[in-house]
Amino acid sequence: MAKPRMSSIDGKLAEEFAAPSHVGEVKEKMAAFAQCHAEAGHKVVLITSGGTKVPLESRTVRFLDNFSSGRRGASSAEYFLDSGYAVVFLHRHRSLYPYTHHFSTVAMMDALQFRGDEASGHSVDVLVDQEQLPNIAKVLKRYQEVKESGLLLPVEFNTLSEYLHLLKAAAQALSGIGPKAMFYLAAAVSDFYIPASEMPEHKIQSSNGPLQLSLKMVPKVLSPLVKDWAPQAFVISFKLETDPSILLHKARQALDTYRHQVVVANVLDSRRGYVMVVTPETETELVLTEEQTKNGVEIEERIVDNLTSAHDKFITPQTS
Amino acid sequence: MAKPRMSSIDGKLAEEFAAPSHVGEVKEKMAAFAQCHAEAGHKVVLITSGGTKVPLESRTVRFLDNFSSGRRGASSAEYFLDSGYAVVFLHRHRSLYPYTHHFSTVAMMDALQFRGDEASGHSVDVLVDQEQLPNIAKVLKRYQEVKESGLLLPVEFNTLSEYLHLLKAAAQALSGIGPKAMFYLAAAVSDFYIPASEMPEHKIQSSNGPLQLSLKMVPKVLSPLVKDWAPQAFVISFKLETDPSILLHKARQALDTYRHQVVVANVLDSRRGYVMVVTPETETELVLTEEQTKNGVEIEERIVDNLTSAHDKFITPQTS
Repeated sequence: MAKPRMSSIDGKLAEEFAAPSHVGEVKEKMAAFAQCHAEAGHKVVLITSGGTKVPLESRTVRFLDNFSSGRRGASSAEYFLDSGYAVVFLHRHRSLYPYTHHFSTVAMMDALQFRGDEASGHSVDVLVDQEQLPNIAKVLKRYQEVKESGLLLPVEFNTLSEYLHLLKAAAQALSGIGPKAMFYLAAAVSDFYIPASEMPEHKIQSSNGPLQLSLKMVPKVLSPLVKDWAPQAFVISFKLETDPSILLHKARQALDTYRHQVVVANVLDSRRGYVMVVTPETETELVLTEEQTKNGVEIEERIVDNLTSAHDKFITPQTS
Repeated sequence: MAKPRMSSIDGKLAEEFAAPSHVGEVKEKMAAFAQCHAEAGHKVVLITSGGTKVPLESRTVRFLDNFSSGRRGASSAEYFLDSGYAVVFLHRHRSLYPYTHHFSTVAMMDALQFRGDEASGHSVDVLVDQEQLPNIAKVLKRYQEVKESGLLLPVEFNTLSEYLHLLKAAAQALSGIGPKAMFYLAAAVSDFYIPASEMPEHKIQSSNGPLQLSLKMVPKVLSPLVKDWAPQAFVISFKLETDPSILLHKARQALDTYRHQVVVANVLDSRRGYVMVVTPETETELVLTEEQTKNGVEIEERIVDNLTSAHDKFITPQTS
């Protein structure tokens, strides 16, 4: 039997980025998760979320990072779950998490109070003051339902290397369910890195004077993902720019280059209230009014709504 | 009246690092906090904690960062509070926080449960399952006591610029209480930065090819802190290395250069169980046994114990 061809990007991934030791195990878990939920009639989305850490030293003290709290990914996961999707949540360690991201630990701690009295012989309860956290009961209920349902599979990464290998594993794991798989690539992935072979082992000494860094280009894994790893899947990439004038051009360029289905394009300053959903044939603006923003409507609800419809049409094309 | 002389570092700070708009207001608050607690007989410690964000673009998507969860700072704050200190906690936005750092939001959410039944007409309570979070009652009690006492003043930074200006403001604010002020500089501050004048406005485009970065040296603010901003204070800096063989040398070098009181030196891999407290006259190793680590003893308790004693001697020198 012929050996499957290895793209140059696969080769680069294997050579220049250390794979996390648990990648095989996680891949099996993701494949079983996708298979089981697809058989039960669910579509499956892989959401990537958060920034990637790019070490400057092998014993890492300093690193490059990309702006991302993980809010978009965490919030989107909730809407996908509401739409009946099973969700693989591939997120940066400590980035925001579905449901819990509504409450900081300080806000939670501030809302906790004691009830009862040790002197009375009864144990003392620790309660949430629901006036201080008005949404807690609603969010907790949904959190518990989702946990019970097993529809959310969290997977963590920290560095760029971990992200790249886990994304490849996820893509291959989900390829088994064909077009029922969606990839929602919201993570803010670095475009630049320092190869392990060019990295100093120890912390760079400031006594050596000013620092010159030479960063190489990170291989564009969207290309093998679409062509080889999960060729039947419905793939959405994100494009974040700070300059609105180049946004649409960059989105179209990405679609032309990678031949995937959708780019969600947004600008740093307005990303909470405006995105453009770009496909080879269409451009759809999703906008929140000030009123809606004030009332807590989230743009992610609109994005997920738009994409789940598009995914349905992708799975079952309408003949005209 | 002669204008106070401005050190070259003060000048650089003013020119090359944008001051946060609220720095004046925060400075007044810190000065009032220090004054009031010193009058009530408390010593005051400024703890810095967490890494600093160094933007690569003025509309920042990419940045350099330093490894630091903020665990050491958050944990140390608790022991200083236990020792009767008032604490200014100058920490990176979203880094670990005193008391709350014992629980992740996911662990908290997992431990919440409903009690009661809407059908019964009583409201439904949300409780913490104390078997799942065995320390919650103890930690919450202490958290509430500290809040009640007003002995903890949190101040947030995000970027290197914010950190530098807030540290200067804090040092000047605490200088009013002389030797009763301690500076515990545990934040992982970048040694390198890109001046605003050399920074591109917009997100760096990966289509431009590999990235060359030229980073300048961050001014060593420990120097004006010790000499000008808070000359009577008790000052501790931290030295984190990955190479144990240069650790002591680097610590001694820092004491020689900046003329402050203590360097707490530690190595990345062993920092949770070993530090060396270095003064011009002494070197004291603080070590946790495996047994102690297993039982949840924290090295920060030992560090704070050592430093509060040294601070007492600093305030009231013993005549022999």
